[in-house]
This record gives sequence, structure tokens and C-alpha cells, in this order.
Amino acid sequence: MAGCCAALAAFLFEYDTPRIVLIRSRKVGLMNRAVQLLILAYVIGWVFVWQKGYQEMDSVVSSVTAKAKGVTTTNTSKLGFRIWDVADYVIPAQEENSLFIMTNMIVTMNQTQGLCPEIPDKSTVCESDADCTTGSAGTHSNGVATGRCVPFNETMNTCEVAAWCPVEDDAQVPTPAFLKAAENFTLLIKNNIWYPKFNFSKRNILPNITTAYLKTCIYDTKTDPFCPVFQLGKIVENAGHSFQDMAVEGGIMGIQIKWDCNLDRAASHCLPRYSFRRLDTRDVDHNVSPGYNFRFAKYYNDLTGAEHRTLIKAYGIRFDIVVFGKAGKFDIIPTMINIGSGLALLGVTTVLCDVIVLYCMKKRYYYREKKYKYVEDYEQGLGSDRDQ
Amino acid sequence: MAGCCAALAAFLFEYDTPRIVLIRSRKVGLMNRAVQLLILAYVIGWVFVWQKGYQEMDSVVSSVTAKAKGVTTTNTSKLGFRIWDVADYVIPAQEENSLFIMTNMIVTMNQTQGLCPEIPDKSTVCESDADCTTGSAGTHSNGVATGRCVPFNETMNTCEVAAWCPVEDDAQVPTPAFLKAAENFTLLIKNNIWYPKFNFSKRNILPNITTAYLKTCIYDTKTDPFCPVFQLGKIVENAGHSFQDMAVEGGIMGIQIKWDCNLDRAASHCLPRYSFRRLDTRDVDHNVSPGYNFRFAKYYNDLTGAEHRTLIKAYGIRFDIVVFGKAGKFDIIPTMINIGSGLALLGVTTVLCDVIVLYCMKKRYYYREKKYKYVEDYEQGLGSDRDQ
Amino acid sequence: MAGCCAALAAFLFEYDTPRIVLIRSRKVGLMNRAVQLLILAYVIGWVFVWQKGYQEMDSVVSSVTAKAKGVTTTNTSKLGFRIWDVADYVIPAQEENSLFIMTNMIVTMNQTQGLCPEIPDKSTVCESDADCTTGSAGTHSNGVATGRCVPFNETMNTCEVAAWCPVEDDAQVPTPAFLKAAENFTLLIKNNIWYPKFNFSKRNILPNITTAYLKTCIYDTKTDPFCPVFQLGKIVENAGHSFQDMAVEGGIMGIQIKWDCNLDRAASHCLPRYSFRRLDTRDVDHNVSPGYNFRFAKYYNDLTGAEHRTLIKAYGIRFDIVVFGKAGKFDIIPTMINIGSGLALLGVTTVLCDVIVLYCMKKRYYYREKKYKYVEDYEQGLGSDRDQ
Repeated sequence: MAGCCAALAAFLFEYDTPRIVLIRSRKVGLMNRAVQLLILAYVIGWVFVWQKGYQEMDSVVSSVTAKAKGVTTTNTSKLGFRIWDVADYVIPAQEENSLFIMTNMIVTMNQTQGLCPEIPDKSTVCESDADCTTGSAGTHSNGVATGRCVPFNETMNTCEVAAWCPVEDDAQVPTPAFLKAAENFTLLIKNNIWYPKFNFSKRNILPNITTAYLKTCIYDTKTDPFCPVFQLGKIVENAGHSFQDMAVEGGIMGIQIKWDCNLDRAASHCLPRYSFRRLDTRDVDHNVSPGYNFRFAKYYNDLTGAEHRTLIKAYGIRFDIVVFGKAGKFDIIPTMINIGSGLALLGVTTVLCDVIVLYCMKKRYYYREKKYKYVEDYEQGLGSDRDQ
Repeated sequence: MAGCCAALAAFLFEYDTPRIVLIRSRKVGLMNRAVQLLILAYVIGWVFVWQKGYQEMDSVVSSVTAKAKGVTTTNTSKLGFRIWDVADYVIPAQEENSLFIMTNMIVTMNQTQGLCPEIPDKSTVCESDADCTTGSAGTHSNGVATGRCVPFNETMNTCEVAAWCPVEDDAQVPTPAFLKAAENFTLLIKNNIWYPKFNFSKRNILPNITTAYLKTCIYDTKTDPFCPVFQLGKIVENAGHSFQDMAVEGGIMGIQIKWDCNLDRAASHCLPRYSFRRLDTRDVDHNVSPGYNFRFAKYYNDLTGAEHRTLIKAYGIRFDIVVFGKAGKFDIIPTMINIGSGLALLGVTTVLCDVIVLYCMKKRYYYREKKYKYVEDYEQGLGSDRDQ
Repeated sequence: MAGCCAALAAFLFEYDTPRIVLIRSRKVGLMNRAVQLLILAYVIGWVFVWQKGYQEMDSVVSSVTAKAKGVTTTNTSKLGFRIWDVADYVIPAQEENSLFIMTNMIVTMNQTQGLCPEIPDKSTVCESDADCTTGSAGTHSNGVATGRCVPFNETMNTCEVAAWCPVEDDAQVPTPAFLKAAENFTLLIKNNIWYPKFNFSKRNILPNITTAYLKTCIYDTKTDPFCPVFQLGKIVENAGHSFQDMAVEGGIMGIQIKWDCNLDRAASHCLPRYSFRRLDTRDVDHNVSPGYNFRFAKYYNDLTGAEHRTLIKAYGIRFDIVVFGKAGKFDIIPTMINIGSGLALLGVTTVLCDVIVLYCMKKRYYYREKKYKYVEDYEQGLGSDRDQ
């Protein structure tokens, strides 16, 4: 018990600090300080100032709504004169983080369930019924083959299929794009972000934006970098592509909103940065299955109650709004971790300098003798002890 | 060769440990231990216990489905008596992480492609054709101007447009909301989460939830915190807003499901926490373009085959289900990193105490003499060597 | 001033390195090196080689499009012979990161707004009007009760409701699934990824994939691991479920695309890895509200202009495409942090060995005497100084 207490006392009332050899030498001294300075500079300059190593990070949670505006007219032999407004070219009417705008289309009107010849291609062209397998339905066929070979036109026969007739012929994509005027349509993007860890939220319609401004402004990198209204043409152009080219076969545009915020500064400094990228990379040399399109139909019932539909293969541009970013705020943990490893690095100095001093300098033996105290095991211990 | 071996032997069979000065002094000793204790407390208490610095972290991968239930009736001069069920007010029928429920609407029935006067506003009211530019289509106009100035009503003339006629007049938003009864509709949310790094998956319909309970329960923070059926009214209320206000102009509600799991404990402790936020911030002082709405149309063909449509400007509440959270599980890497920096911090103690002992205490010269051994370059070297 | 300069000179031209006791002992020496080796092995082997602790990490930003192909026929008494193609079974026509394919359905044709008896269940079956509360609309009812009790069929009376009549009867889910042939439909998934931090982007249609190959290939873990065309049946099978079972009540399949890239290597090594999971866990023992379905309607106007609709309760499989992954690239910060904490760990060696040497070995007193130099406060100071 008493021993224990003594030990405790010893433990409490003792302070142990390493014994140091102080080598008074310009060369070594300066070298030592230089290395220390370097490491210090790195730790402070790079880790703290540049990388904000003292900040706790959080990534963004966001909600987005996009709304298109614009109206245009088309005049074709097939559809005649026609007006197109939002309800016509935005499909589906609403999505969460993206908006599709139809720019081109292949319409097949008044389809009914029935039998009709397939579109000719190497698998469907036939001489006789023998060439058509009953019930077969290839991945790319429009219907299920009946097994009969019927005339497609004066010159050609193709296998008959049970399908929505007449079947769609999408061999030719209209060029230029059917709704090329979509270039002038506008997109209003409302984005609210939230950093859960710091419970900080903000919207991309900044406090200084008035209703009047919102009605008239168009986003421009230089003049209106914070206007949330975008002109489709400008978006594509900003991404370094041509709207008219893109409109023909469709594609996907990424509207990136970056919210990098340093919450140690005023909230007003936390601003959205818009950038635009085409997400369906079109490397000219490797252009496999380009563009973006899908099919949908409008269904009608005629007098007899029979069902008709208008099939539309819609080519268009899908605007994906990608919100990302990180917010940083001072926090003790990362600070400590970085200081810790910084200090550990400072330890390297001694190691480094020791190597030089004890192995490279011509006075190394002299210095070693000063730094080290050799201790042999008992037998030779006493002898060796002298050299201290 | 032999020398090399000798060096290796020396390297292998030598153990070098710093020489320590043990200062037996209550003051210094206690101070030293105190500082060490503080740092240890921080490392263990804060980093490990609080911040779980010993855990590998992973963020959630999730899938969500939402299904609305509820039916109501409306009775207006325009539409007459009408029933509204899920298929009528959920648009589109299914989405991935969100669900839109129409609460208010402006219907424009039996639109056909044609010519009609624009809705009067400062840009469309006209005295003569001179006031109307042919072919112009402003961002906010409903059609393309024909250039003629026609009577809108007895008192007023507006520019004629080629458009879906009659054009929509959305000046007045119905108040109270058309489908105000939506307050009582319910939302069943099914959420499956997965932590790839730990291959841990779970759903928000907990094992102890029975079909019977699911049919009857309604989420309540207090009484039913794990019931995945939510009443729209309660959701908005929980977020601190009024459903009836929100229903008029629409908005976006965030249903946040937080899965913070400590996988070092039993899986049954990993539970979803629901919270609700209105995502389209409505600061009363800065209320620019509030709410949420979009347009869609139902298309019809009449006897003559001419196309009609019913245009609906749908105001409503979009429920975004945001799933987030982190799971932690013991892992050696972060543990080591934290221990490492913790130890590095312990090193600070010596530095700190040394400063005090060697520069601040009155016995500093005495202590310094004990700690340091001064080594000059040769010439004065021997002399200075004595003071050891 | 002069003193200050002297101090500065002293600071600059001095190099302090701890004095070391070199214990020449095989036992201790080897032990020391062994421990050091272990820690070194851990730091290098585990942290650096295995965990790539020298890399800056970034997580993926991605865009996805999915397109289904396939056509099938059904022949039922209710609908007669009918063709189903993409426009019929994909609802909605396009989504951002997922695609729903209808595999089963309950159709209720020619609904009109009116009055009709409810579907019988314990709450709707009635003897007299007294059993029906006017205006009540339960969560699960199809309409608003009128308060009358009317015959549902010869044997049974139920409460009358104002609803879309006739009301849907979804008691029986068709088995086998109505569109069981969907098993052979295919899904083309286009995925573009981007690592913002490294501005590295790639698509899942690899450069070596030709249009011809894309037209014919089907994904297969073994033979075609990089073909982006998936057969629905195979997807479900890969996830360890039966497509036909799943098709009946629907469900959610996760198509996971993992892009783990080491950007220190060639970009061609950065490849997508596909895996499949059923996201709506169906634990046989706890099968509450299984599957996935929703309702939508097609609206028609008849001669009189009265509105009809066909209500469809669609069961089906929603394919969620979940893209995740991390890219790593050498970066100085994490490297330094890890080296730092690694070095700090090396410090542990000395601590560890000291404990053994100074407390466990029989020669401990001898070693202690060599390592420590005891310094008392003045009074006894001189005395104790001798034992050095």
C-alpha cells in the first residue's frame, strides 16, 4: 500500500523531459531551422490556408424545380399549321431534377391494332411466306409476325406483323429539327439547398433579385451570372455545342449548380455557380447510339369505341440539373488531426538532420560521441560506461 | 563485406532510447500530468466516444416508392359535380423519389388550334393593328401574334394570336384551393436502404409492423414514429406551415428520412427518423415566384377528327423524399489515424512544459543546465564539454 | 537590442537533438526492430498499398438514360387480341434514373362519373341505408358515400358511392402476369460519369463497342460483361429472384453500376461493373405490402362530350439505375496525413520497448540508471546530482 502510494507520488510529482545535445554550429543550425520552416510552411500554408484543413465539411442536399416557357409554330404537309406550347413539348409534364423538351419528332398518326407489312430491312424483306416465321418478334421489330409475306409497296414485299398499324417508319430523322425554334425557349430553375450538418439553407433566387428582374433577365456568364432564367440555345452554346445539331437527334445537357461555401464567412458569400456540360459525350470518332429519344402515344376512341393512337417518337434535349458542392465550417476535430500530423512531420526534421550530422559531416564521430551513450550488458557494461 | 555485416549487427542488436531528465518537482510534475490528462481526455472523450473516430463511415444508397390514397368531390359551375381520385390528381402517375399531388388548378376546356385575342396585359392591349407586331412571340405570350388587333371584350382590344384557343387566363388563382380536401389524403412511403461498404440493408417497414397496423396507422412524431403512412396535412403542419395556404399556390415539401446507424450495435437499433421541411423557402419579405405549378393537357379527337385539348395549369405540392444518413462500423484505419494524431498531440505536452520550466520558472537556469549539454565546434568544443 | 540579436543568433545557429542511450543487447535490440518493422509494415502495406491512403478521393457524378425494346401480344376475353409495344407498357414515357415496365394490370374500362355500389368489404356491405354514412370517404374507398344502400349483385348490398363508375375491383391480381412475355424485353442503358475533382469523364458504351455489337449483344456476367443491353429476365435472375413471380405483384430492381477507378493508372482500366439487387426486400417471413403498383387513367370524350376514362392499375417492375463509385488519384495532403500519423505510430515503439526494458527485464535498474538523470530541487539537488 505504502509502496503504491510512493509510486503514485513519484508518478505525479516527476516531470521527465529528454536530455538534449545543443550543437553550436552555423551549418547544422541553419539547416535544421530551414527544414523546420519548410514543414511549418507546408502545414500552415497548404493544409490550413489552401485546403482549409481546419474545417468540418458537409455536402449539399438540394431540391430543384424547372419550368419552361416559349411557344412556336410549325407548318408541315402532314400536320398542317400548328402551334406548340409548353403542354405540347414538355414530356412528362413534371420531373424531379430534370426537364425534357422535345425538339424533333416522328409522328405516326391514327394507328390501330391490326395487321400490316413490316418496315423493310434485311430481316423483314421476303419473297414468300416461307421467309417469315410465325410468332417471331425480334427486339427491333414493330410487331409479331403472322407468317405471311405481303406487299409493302409496288416494288417490295415484307413480312406481315400484328401491330399498331401503320407501323412507324423512323428511318429518316427530320433535318433540320422540327421544333428548331426551341432554341429561344427559356428555362426557369428554382433551386433550394441545405447543409444538414450546419443547418444552413439558401435558394438560387438571391435576396436582391426582384420579380421585375426575374421576368426580363436571361442568364449570362458575364452580365447576369445569378439570373436563374436560362435560354436553351445559350445553355448548349455555353457547353460548346450547336443547339441546331443537338436538336436533331436529341441529347442530354447537364446544368451544374455548384454551391461551394465557406460558412466561416458571411452567408451572402455563398453563391451558386452555374456551368453547363453535354452529358452524352459525342466523340466524333466513336459515335455509337448518339442522341436521346423515346416513344409515347396519345390514345383516342373513335365513334365505334375502337381505340386509336398517335405514336410519337420524340427526340429532344433532357436538361438534368446536377447540384453539388461542399460547405466548410471551422471544427476542432479536423483541426486537431491536421495539427497532430503536422507536428509529427516536424519530428522528421530531427531524424533528417541527425542523419546528416551523424553520417555525412566530417565531424560526425565527434557529434556521435556527444549524442550517444553506449551501454553494454553488465559484463562489459562497466568498461564501456567509461566512454561517456 | 565484413564491415557491412558489423553495421547490420550493430543496427539489429542496438536499442536506442532518449536519455531523460527526471525533475522531481511537485509544481512541474503536476502541471505536466494535468496537460497530458487534458489531451488524453480530448483524444479519448471527444474523438473516440463522441465523434466515433474509430469507425469507418459509409453513406446510404436508397430506393423509395410513394403511393397516395384518398378521394374527394368538387362542385363548381364550370366542371359541375366531380369526383377526384388518385388517377386524377397524381401527375405523373409515378416518379422515382417524389410524388406530386395537385391541390389547385386552372382548367381551360376545349382548346383548339386557331386564332383568338391574347389575354390583356400592358404588352398585348392595342388600339390598332399597328400596335401588334406580326410573328412576335414573347416569353410570356400564349401564342404567335398575327398582327391584327381584335376585341377581347366590349371594353378592350388585344392583339390576336395563333394559339390553342381560347387562351388560358391564369390571372386569378382559385382561393381557397380547389382540392383543399387533399389535406386528408395519405401517403404510403416504402424506403429500402443499403450500405454498400458493410452490405447492410433495411427497409422502413420494420419487422414488427403488421399489415393490419399498416392499414390503420398514421405517422405521428409521438405515438407512431415508425408508421410509414403520412397524412398530407400533418406533414405540412410538422414543417410549420399551413396546408391550406400552401395548397393555393403549391410548393415543395421535403420528407427527410435519416438513417444514422452504428453498426457496431444490433441492426435493430438502426431506425429511420422522419423529419419534414418546406423546400421552397418562402421568406415573407422576399417572396419572388412562390409556389410550384406546371401545365399539362389531355388531348381528344372530335367527330371530325379535329384535335381538342383540355389545358390544366396544376398547382400542387411535390413531396420529395430525401434519404440520407451515415453508418459507422469499427475499422482499424481511422482508429490508427486518430491514435496517431492523438499521440502526436501528447508530444505537445513536453514542448509546452519545457517552455514553462526553462523560460518561466525562477530555477530555469538550473534546469536548463541539466537538460542541455552544449557542444561547440572542436576548437572551443573541449572547453564547453566540461559544463556537462 | 544586442541581447535580442544574440538570442536570435543562438536560435538560428543551434541544433538540438535528444541524447540517446544506445543499449547493446540482442534481446532488446531485436525486439525494438521487430516492433518498428510491424508498424512500418502496417503503415506501408495496409494504409498505402491496400487502402490507397496516398490518394485524394472523389465520388461520381452521373447521368443515365434507359430505353426499353420489345413487343408482345395478349389475348383475353376482356381486351381481345392486343399488341403491346414500348409506348403501351413504359409509364411514364421517360424518367431520369429509372424506367418502369408494366408486367401486370387490372383494367377498368369506360368509367364515367356517377353513382354505383362500392366493392364489398366488411366496411361497405350493408343491410339498409342506416349502415352507410353520407359523405364519408375512407382512405381505401373508391368514392364518397351517398348514404344509400344498393344491391351490388343478387346476393349482396353495398353502400352507394359517387365515383368513377364502375368502380375498380382489384381483389384478384391476374396470375400468371398479364405481360409475362416482358421477360424477353431488353433495356439499353446509357451512362455517362464524371469525376469533377479530376475532370475525368467516361461512358459505359466503351470505345471498343461497335454499333453492330450493340444491336446484337446481351449483357452476361461471363461472356459480355460490358454490353449495356440487358434482358429483363436475366436481370431479375442475376439478383436471385424469379421474373415470373416478380411480374405478378411488381417490384423494384436496382441496376447498380460501380465505377471504382484508380486514376493513377490508364483511363482504360476505369470500367463499369454491373450488379443487380432487388430493392424491395421480400423477406418471406415478413411480407407486408409487397410489390409495386400505381394507378393511371386514359381519358376520352364521347359524342356528347361526356368524359370517359379507362383506369389501369399497373403492376410492374421499376428499374432504378444506381450509379456509385469512387475515383482515387495521388495527392499530397492525404499522403502527408498518413505519413504523419504513421511516424507518430513509430514513436509508440520507443514507449513500448521502454516499458519492457525499464519495468520487465531483470536488468531494469541498471538500464534505468543509464536512461534517467534525476534532478531534485536545489536543496537536495546537489546530492542527487551525483547519481549521474
